Amino acid sequence: MFSFECDYLQGAHPKVLEALCETNRITQPGYGADMWWASACQKIKAAFSAPDHDVYLLTGGTQTNALIIDSLIRPYEGVISADTGHINVHEAGAVEHTGHKVLALPHHDGKLDAADVKAYLETFYADGTWTHMVKPGMVYISHPTEYGTLYTADELKALSAVCQEYDMPLFLDGARLGYGLASNDTDVTPALLAQLCDVFYVGGTKVGALCGEAVVFRPGVMPAQFATIVKQHGAMVAKGRLLGVQFDALFTDGLYFEISKNAIDMAQKMKDLFRRKGYAFFKETATNQQFVLLEDAQMARLAPLVGFSVWEKADESHTVVRFATSWATSDEDLAKLEEIL
Amino acid sequence: MFSFECDYLQGAHPKVLEALCETNRITQPGYGADMWWASACQKIKAAFSAPDHDVYLLTGGTQTNALIIDSLIRPYEGVISADTGHINVHEAGAVEHTGHKVLALPHHDGKLDAADVKAYLETFYADGTWTHMVKPGMVYISHPTEYGTLYTADELKALSAVCQEYDMPLFLDGARLGYGLASNDTDVTPALLAQLCDVFYVGGTKVGALCGEAVVFRPGVMPAQFATIVKQHGAMVAKGRLLGVQFDALFTDGLYFEISKNAIDMAQKMKDLFRRKGYAFFKETATNQQFVLLEDAQMARLAPLVGFSVWEKADESHTVVRFATSWATSDEDLAKLEEIL
Amino acid sequence: MFSFECDYLQGAHPKVLEALCETNRITQPGYGADMWWASACQKIKAAFSAPDHDVYLLTGGTQTNALIIDSLIRPYEGVISADTGHINVHEAGAVEHTGHKVLALPHHDGKLDAADVKAYLETFYADGTWTHMVKPGMVYISHPTEYGTLYTADELKALSAVCQEYDMPLFLDGARLGYGLASNDTDVTPALLAQLCDVFYVGGTKVGALCGEAVVFRPGVMPAQFATIVKQHGAMVAKGRLLGVQFDALFTDGLYFEISKNAIDMAQKMKDLFRRKGYAFFKETATNQQFVLLEDAQMARLAPLVGFSVWEKADESHTVVRFATSWATSDEDLAKLEEIL
Amino acid sequence: MFSFECDYLQGAHPKVLEALCETNRITQPGYGADMWWASACQKIKAAFSAPDHDVYLLTGGTQTNALIIDSLIRPYEGVISADTGHINVHEAGAVEHTGHKVLALPHHDGKLDAADVKAYLETFYADGTWTHMVKPGMVYISHPTEYGTLYTADELKALSAVCQEYDMPLFLDGARLGYGLASNDTDVTPALLAQLCDVFYVGGTKVGALCGEAVVFRPGVMPAQFATIVKQHGAMVAKGRLLGVQFDALFTDGLYFEISKNAIDMAQKMKDLFRRKGYAFFKETATNQQFVLLEDAQMARLAPLVGFSVWEKADESHTVVRFATSWATSDEDLAKLEEIL
Repeated sequence: MFSFECDYLQGAHPKVLEALCETNRITQPGYGADMWWASACQKIKAAFSAPDHDVYLLTGGTQTNALIIDSLIRPYEGVISADTGHINVHEAGAVEHTGHKVLALPHHDGKLDAADVKAYLETFYADGTWTHMVKPGMVYISHPTEYGTLYTADELKALSAVCQEYDMPLFLDGARLGYGLASNDTDVTPALLAQLCDVFYVGGTKVGALCGEAVVFRPGVMPAQFATIVKQHGAMVAKGRLLGVQFDALFTDGLYFEISKNAIDMAQKMKDLFRRKGYAFFKETATNQQFVLLEDAQMARLAPLVGFSVWEKADESHTVVRFATSWATSDEDLAKLEEIL
Repeated sequence: MFSFECDYLQGAHPKVLEALCETNRITQPGYGADMWWASACQKIKAAFSAPDHDVYLLTGGTQTNALIIDSLIRPYEGVISADTGHINVHEAGAVEHTGHKVLALPHHDGKLDAADVKAYLETFYADGTWTHMVKPGMVYISHPTEYGTLYTADELKALSAVCQEYDMPLFLDGARLGYGLASNDTDVTPALLAQLCDVFYVGGTKVGALCGEAVVFRPGVMPAQFATIVKQHGAMVAKGRLLGVQFDALFTDGLYFEISKNAIDMAQKMKDLFRRKGYAFFKETATNQQFVLLEDAQMARLAPLVGFSVWEKADESHTVVRFATSWATSDEDLAKLEEIL
Repeated sequence: MFSFECDYLQGAHPKVLEALCETNRITQPGYGADMWWASACQKIKAAFSAPDHDVYLLTGGTQTNALIIDSLIRPYEGVISADTGHINVHEAGAVEHTGHKVLALPHHDGKLDAADVKAYLETFYADGTWTHMVKPGMVYISHPTEYGTLYTADELKALSAVCQEYDMPLFLDGARLGYGLASNDTDVTPALLAQLCDVFYVGGTKVGALCGEAVVFRPGVMPAQFATIVKQHGAMVAKGRLLGVQFDALFTDGLYFEISKNAIDMAQKMKDLFRRKGYAFFKETATNQQFVLLEDAQMARLAPLVGFSVWEKADESHTVVRFATSWATSDEDLAKLEEIL
Repeated sequence: MFSFECDYLQGAHPKVLEALCETNRITQPGYGADMWWASACQKIKAAFSAPDHDVYLLTGGTQTNALIIDSLIRPYEGVISADTGHINVHEAGAVEHTGHKVLALPHHDGKLDAADVKAYLETFYADGTWTHMVKPGMVYISHPTEYGTLYTADELKALSAVCQEYDMPLFLDGARLGYGLASNDTDVTPALLAQLCDVFYVGGTKVGALCGEAVVFRPGVMPAQFATIVKQHGAMVAKGRLLGVQFDALFTDGLYFEISKNAIDMAQKMKDLFRRKGYAFFKETATNQQFVLLEDAQMARLAPLVGFSVWEKADESHTVVRFATSWATSDEDLAKLEEIL
């Protein structure tokens, strides 16, 4: 189906697939000991100006979130998240499954506010009974957020400062990181991100890979025996090359950023298109996800013609829907969309 | 490196890769709702003469074992396994991580004996204090086993009978199932396997896929809300097509069985080779894994020339090592091995 | 210290202690097989007009909450609770420790509103992606609530109806149940409670026992192998008589209700006292907990003289504090309080 | 029933009960902040010549085992135990419920052998694939063991040395510790035990208390936020005084050791009695548990007359049974037993 439903409706970027084909018959050891894995990690560290960081490749986002949270905090600690955070809403309780409470704070356009976090922590530790409560052990943010919004450098710095003050790691879910870094409206550079976060990941699944998320740890943060933890969580891939080859390709000659840029350019054109056609926005963003407000009749007309995500009811007769571009979106796709709108 | 270390040292079978390339730009929904997933499940059911069974595709073996065990037994139940069973030894405690004890019984050539299981259960329930103990809730076997051995049809029937008597599902780990079914020395057919097991899986990772295990449930056995459970365990793949396309290719025109047969033929030739060259066997098997007994000097000479797995010390001066063939092993590989031996 | 800080500052009601003394040297089996345990369960069932219900005795509230929730819902399900619910705030994440998310809804005076629950469920199931979310599996309420408030019979009926409609058990945390049932302002009888709840517990720790909570299950609701589950959770008491003797005493000749009534009578007098002395209430309740609003100077003056719980800051210069009566509160205590106020 | 079935068939030692009665109406804070708790901890430290250790009071043995193991090792680590260890056999999988594998080694009269442990560890770390296995993180022993046997000082020293070498805590389950320390045939003093173990507990439930186990940690070993962990595991007692008062009484004027001695003296007399009457022993021990071999007809005759525990079938016509004395056993009990035998 012709679709803007999400950013994982096609396979891999052709160059990623090409790399899988070219390397296919080369014999290499399993479990992340292959040569592409090593090369991919080096290239990712270079791209984020983080030569001493540690990188580990995993398969998917929910898996990565639960694994990172569970391995970096103590069993009795919880993780602070915006109430709209993916871990709080759309991961089937994977974090709680590992025993940790998600401590949800109200979001601001999908973002967590440093002042809110600080106020929460102050109130928490001022309560004489806090040892009977879930100790906040980490801050989780997504960038871009579930609403396609982006933190500014100053916002990230403020969150990082609160985390440092309370000795908690700052964890950034970058399932769509490419689309954030390639945005025209961001002052967050890869290097700054690596400086401010204790751990973050570079999403592959939604940015040109068949699967894969590359986790980047500040030096000293990656837990001892991490491979064992990964295995224990059922997250280890026997043919680690599947991840190694893909990320090696994505981080060769800046491919990851280049294809992310395509999604941004297409999103810009798509926004213009909706605007020209008189559609109302629920939320316009600087990334690849745009939230449009459809009147019921509009929605009924469009639904059979083009794929989009139904987000939530806005009122009695309107619905918020999401149109997403990706590395794979082309001008032809937009032309076709224009006809339909 | 030139290697017989294991059966996952190369990428995917060329036809699997080809299918990924051909379908790459087709737009299909995520999370297992793609058309290849549906097609793959149909073909697998047909291959196992199990039209009413349910099939679900997962990524890797340890993940599958933990998820199936955790979702099919009650939280206070344990799983009976041979002490050499993969879940008991080589999965970093993934099953215990989900809260379940592995109830290990002594193996016989890697296999679990039905009489042992029955005796264990009788003793267990005869103990007046069994409510203070871990209730056996499932029987886990692997086929081929970790020693490359195979259950006979009669052995499987006996295990199935004990399981039925005690109302426990029989779960068969088929990470290398193809190499078992393609063996020249087995009376276990795909159809019989589907009849006797309550749940089993068809390994892809070690039999021609980049990743993937296809779980097959007897009608009525797949838990309600299985997709939610998969998600909660961090095992759901956003681009389900990665699994769907691969299994669809593997089960088109009998490819899975054909490439498994290659491993068996090559293993047969490899055994002959070792025998001709005067090597002693620790265990000769009818599948793709052969266990050779190397004297220390022999091992020191071979190690730099060819890859193999070190299994265990046999005595002061000998070591058991494993040589494995796979779908990818060729006559050229054996010729090269012959030179070295 | 002279104190109204909470309802567990003294030991047991004298008759409970007496029973422990009298039965001390009688030889009886452990783990709940003693004669007092059986007798206590019978008396509790009679007191709640629930002859076919099942009763099981546990030690403490947090333990009971986590155990009941974990054993009655599926591993991937969550539990709906008021955001002020004890399980959501003051149990150190014990529920999440067992893998379940607490699905918090806004409270109304500490209570969960049936209409809110219904709206939540409707929205949840209307979301096409709900299989990626935490399925609501149970409704948890406390009665009296953490704010000392009580559900009316109609409110309970409405919650029960929603639960039935969505096939979820209704679980009532009765850590202070006696103080609720003995209130002068309630239309909830013991019999009605047993009719409407699928499982509830009768708190002993805060109502005259040294420890102990009696869980009451609607017929058919107690999980199979419950004793094994209790043991696995570390909640089984070897000398089950400790719980059996206490509950047997509490439910002999209506002692439980009689001593609960004392707390209510004393709370009534205490409220009058505060009112006469000109104190402002944050929340006056019909149970044994009263929430008073103290100005900073007032609080500084009272703190060294009498024990109370600091609840939360009300504004810049005022604090909400709790004064609780119990089975042990006497007219002498109130006379002393009067002097201080 | 007249019974030697186990050591928890009666209530508390009269002095313990007396202390509960005397302190009953004194107002003290909950959750372990009462004055008896503090006093009990001081006295226990003194009794074990361990002034700088940390002590925490819990309710029961299975709870304590699971909590200590779970809080002292990393989530991916397992615990080494004799295969007959209580955690491996009789705790309904409570340790696995917290996610940890019990790594069972063959027992020697119920004991773990230091050489076995060392050999296990050497083999484990020699295996190139150990990151895929459960890392041993702790050694668990019980003293007396489940067979009533005792470690010698040298055996404990050897275990402690292996633990130090591999940087693992040594954890001693002292559910029946009193009966071990009071034995006439032991060179293990309280002080030595505190020196050699990283953590151990002093059992109350089976030695004169209604409930309670006192955990003693070597300085620096008690986890940060231990109270939160206790709460999260559902193991915190609101009226901590229940534990505080009991242990305070047990460690006043050496009561704990005095009443343990009674059990030992009575066991000695009981052994003599069985011997005089011509009974065969399966295992004679230096503690309060004796294992007698009964022929079927003998067992049928005795069963209605006196309580004992059925341990296991010895052969076709014989059964191993356990007779246990306790702090409560009297000469009258033995006289009655003599008549029956």
